[in-house]
Amino acid sequence: MTVPNDTSTPQTPNPKPQTPFVCPIPKQQYENIVLAHGAGGRLMHNLIDQVFAKGFGNPLLETDHDSAVLEHNGVRLCFTTDSYVVNPIFFPGGDIGTLAVCGTVNDLAMSGARPLYLSAGFILEEGLPITTLQRIVQSMQATAKEVGVAVVTGDTKVVERGKADGLFINTAGIGICEKDLKIAPRQVREGDVLLLNGDIGRHGMAIMALREGLRFETTIRSDVAPLWGMVEALLDAGIEIHCLRDLTRGGLASALNEIAKTAGVRIAIDERSIPVRDDVNGACEMLGLDPLQVANEGRLVAFVKSEDADRALEIMRGHPLGEQAARIGQVTAGASPLVTMNTVFGAARIVDMLSGDPLPRIC
Amino acid sequence: MTVPNDTSTPQTPNPKPQTPFVCPIPKQQYENIVLAHGAGGRLMHNLIDQVFAKGFGNPLLETDHDSAVLEHNGVRLCFTTDSYVVNPIFFPGGDIGTLAVCGTVNDLAMSGARPLYLSAGFILEEGLPITTLQRIVQSMQATAKEVGVAVVTGDTKVVERGKADGLFINTAGIGICEKDLKIAPRQVREGDVLLLNGDIGRHGMAIMALREGLRFETTIRSDVAPLWGMVEALLDAGIEIHCLRDLTRGGLASALNEIAKTAGVRIAIDERSIPVRDDVNGACEMLGLDPLQVANEGRLVAFVKSEDADRALEIMRGHPLGEQAARIGQVTAGASPLVTMNTVFGAARIVDMLSGDPLPRIC
Repeated sequence: MTVPNDTSTPQTPNPKPQTPFVCPIPKQQYENIVLAHGAGGRLMHNLIDQVFAKGFGNPLLETDHDSAVLEHNGVRLCFTTDSYVVNPIFFPGGDIGTLAVCGTVNDLAMSGARPLYLSAGFILEEGLPITTLQRIVQSMQATAKEVGVAVVTGDTKVVERGKADGLFINTAGIGICEKDLKIAPRQVREGDVLLLNGDIGRHGMAIMALREGLRFETTIRSDVAPLWGMVEALLDAGIEIHCLRDLTRGGLASALNEIAKTAGVRIAIDERSIPVRDDVNGACEMLGLDPLQVANEGRLVAFVKSEDADRALEIMRGHPLGEQAARIGQVTAGASPLVTMNTVFGAARIVDMLSGDPLPRIC
Repeated sequence: MTVPNDTSTPQTPNPKPQTPFVCPIPKQQYENIVLAHGAGGRLMHNLIDQVFAKGFGNPLLETDHDSAVLEHNGVRLCFTTDSYVVNPIFFPGGDIGTLAVCGTVNDLAMSGARPLYLSAGFILEEGLPITTLQRIVQSMQATAKEVGVAVVTGDTKVVERGKADGLFINTAGIGICEKDLKIAPRQVREGDVLLLNGDIGRHGMAIMALREGLRFETTIRSDVAPLWGMVEALLDAGIEIHCLRDLTRGGLASALNEIAKTAGVRIAIDERSIPVRDDVNGACEMLGLDPLQVANEGRLVAFVKSEDADRALEIMRGHPLGEQAARIGQVTAGASPLVTMNTVFGAARIVDMLSGDPLPRIC
């Protein structure tokens, strides 16, 4: 477990500034879609705000939350969707099928919902070997079984050679909130403690290492995993969770910035407490990336009531996906939403959301 | 209103055979995905059976029905999904956005469920004009409003130029079965009357005419429309509906063959009663297609109890999408599942499902 060096953002001169300076970024207008519009950063959020939220405008479309919560006859449903376009489709630790189940299951879990049903829509490129499709379906089914969800409905489309890239998968998921919980970014409040369930940056770097042909002494394996089991353990123990967020596109940095903005709070994290593996750190340095901004597929941050933090950490560490769980920071007072990090050098720096993302198609 | 000439299938010598001869089609083994695997015909059904149904094997994955029915605390939910890859994305009568809402809403309606919520997953190709995306989102929202569904959750992915074709959309939908109904292919029984809500073949031919640059005196417009309103009217009137099916990929021929096979019944239809527009008929003849096998996006067949048929027909004709509604056939006795048609010449012919489909990417 090592800590990342800050390779991308200049540190502020004052070691612990009270009101750090935020550099204003000019809003760029794009006429056409660019890769960064799908990368989880600021450009994607602009597109969602300006095209989707405006176009579909309705109170249920909470663009700042992982899934929609719908009530019917006292049943609280969660509903979410994700498309998966990862390239390459097989990678150390998983494949597009594992991802298509975990990603959607995790979005449901982040609302405190037990994942129950999945749909699966396949867009196949002409020429895709049927054995490849079979392997992907097997991965999906194995992961679904592990979590206890069932793929109950599906669709298949085929497009001409060169009009897609192997295969794309969409899954939508339905979960049930069994407890009367309010787990959402707006529930975050001053004093909440941030718990992280393990080392960050592995999924993104596993894909990039493969794509760029980087070799290390050990193979970086994706952390892709379904997180419902750990969330269920926390809920069963009665931990007061205010917000949960899985750290996918845009990594820890994007997740915390989104939540700070929605909740209108400041978040202070401590670099020393954030686990990053040596090989991930090395790969990040080589590619000029910040592990805080690299995608994960089996990592979450829980915002819990400070009195419950120790007990929650113990529960997380008792779960196979949380052995390295750590207390990484706290929600603090402050006038405007901001995420800051106390670095290993004792300075504080602003943790910003990227505009785009140097890692396209990692999920 | 004209009737199609049978251009593709040889007629049987005996005018009204009791046990028509079915030509055995050798099962072709494919190693790689071909376009026909997504075309709604026999090859797609083989792929679904052999890869998806086998891989995801669970009792809820009813591959012979448009959506899955899930029960929770007395609430009966329907859940369905479709991806949309239509090419071109704009066509007379609609666009990929209209299609993405209608297609999924119609799948829910075919289970007798009131469509309530949609998810929307976008896969965008780098370079897509943002104004195009905005137009599509506007179409989706206008259609959603018309039906009374809300797009409540979504996702955006972007892939490199040349790795998708403009944009692909997936929608999944949740509906509620408000009445205690059993509307499914297995409910079809001898004596049921088949009602069709209008002329067939328009959607597929609208796309093909555009793609092939065919010009007629009038523009063939797609029939794309949300069918829930008409279904609701039938249910509210207490019509005993045994099965509903929208006639998308593979057209009327595929829909009836699927239902005959699932229900284990014979279906006899009458060519004279099936409305086909002159221009659609002409375009079909020019391209060597059978209107029975061409896709629609606003057409359904209802299998109703024979005593309710006249009343149901009246209700359908009173709806804007059913002015041309017609009684097109009946479920009959017979040893093995089969669909036959009394042609305009007085002969009976077998109506078969295509192996693939000469019209790729029409939805």
